[in-house]
Amino acid sequence: MHFGQEQLHALPHRYRTTLINSVAGFKSANLIGTVAKDGKTNLSIFNSVFHLGAHPPLLGMIVRPHSVPRGTLENILDTGAYTINHVHRDIFTASHQTSARYADEVSEFTATGLSEEWKDQFPAPFVAESRIKLGMDYREHQTLAINQTVLVIGEISAIHVPDSSLGEDGFVDLEAAGSVAVIGLDSYHRTTRLDRLSYAKPDTKPIGVGH
Amino acid sequence: MHFGQEQLHALPHRYRTTLINSVAGFKSANLIGTVAKDGKTNLSIFNSVFHLGAHPPLLGMIVRPHSVPRGTLENILDTGAYTINHVHRDIFTASHQTSARYADEVSEFTATGLSEEWKDQFPAPFVAESRIKLGMDYREHQTLAINQTVLVIGEISAIHVPDSSLGEDGFVDLEAAGSVAVIGLDSYHRTTRLDRLSYAKPDTKPIGVGH
Repeated sequence: MHFGQEQLHALPHRYRTTLINSVAGFKSANLIGTVAKDGKTNLSIFNSVFHLGAHPPLLGMIVRPHSVPRGTLENILDTGAYTINHVHRDIFTASHQTSARYADEVSEFTATGLSEEWKDQFPAPFVAESRIKLGMDYREHQTLAINQTVLVIGEISAIHVPDSSLGEDGFVDLEAAGSVAVIGLDSYHRTTRLDRLSYAKPDTKPIGVGH
Repeated sequence: MHFGQEQLHALPHRYRTTLINSVAGFKSANLIGTVAKDGKTNLSIFNSVFHLGAHPPLLGMIVRPHSVPRGTLENILDTGAYTINHVHRDIFTASHQTSARYADEVSEFTATGLSEEWKDQFPAPFVAESRIKLGMDYREHQTLAINQTVLVIGEISAIHVPDSSLGEDGFVDLEAAGSVAVIGLDSYHRTTRLDRLSYAKPDTKPIGVGH
């Protein structure tokens, strides 16, 4: 099947949303935990967290002001902090449910049954049920003129991972921790490793290096 | 295991690279096809392609000028076009090999055995062996001051997907097409669907909706 530019422009709105959200490839699923100045917590699932660099340790994410409840972005700007908590296979249904439009006074933690976890005096709530959790310090944001989405950049200031998922070289085995991969907006997948490959060099073929 | 800010700063460089590249969650694996003004083709694997919006259909990607051969970015700016080709389980080893630093005059297509595919007069090469392929029109780029990486934004102008992977609602079943998910820089995974969930509403729990 082939869609050209004219066909893409002519597609029904919802069909195009689903199509375009699928075709970039597998995405991460993360719960973003924040708190408002009045103490009300917020938890939202995001599929748009991405690696920006390791030195310093930076992650980006895309916020859609018009389609996502704005609480997350407002809270990040107000408090300077947020948490990133991996969705794993035992919590993906509750995690998906955080995207429902609850009334303003309702915390998604309460509504979905996921539990707030406050630790090490970090100023935003982690998700107790999550296994891989990051404390993030807000660094900067910008509205992208091309489509009015907001790019938020944060620096990782804390990492919590299970001992059993952490390799000797710093590799975190997300599969062992049950983290899921996502297609589009709603399709959740577990994974099975094909191989871990050696650093590529011109004169040799990659070989599997196991863990 | 817990890493705080001081521990993160004190980690050996390579360990930190591996750790930080793992912790954002699963990533996509895409081959970026370009051509230089002199006709030399370039193919590079990227794990940093991400969804930016469906209306218009935009994807972003992060280019690291100092660690990735610069050919990809130069070619995009020179020609205004590139292709995004999904890595699937039958080509992940050859795809990984495109990251080797070949001599300037060598095309990664020739070096890795992946095949150029020119079609519909699109001005950049697709990968014949790939199953999901996007033609991209360059829109804009910017260097992010925080770490000197480059954010490249393109608009999808063509989509090629197997009939068997395309659902009635526009959903593209990447799993059926064999697309892989990646941890970090080198760990490739196939997937198994847990469920596809209905749109979340405050008063009901998500239910599986199948395909």
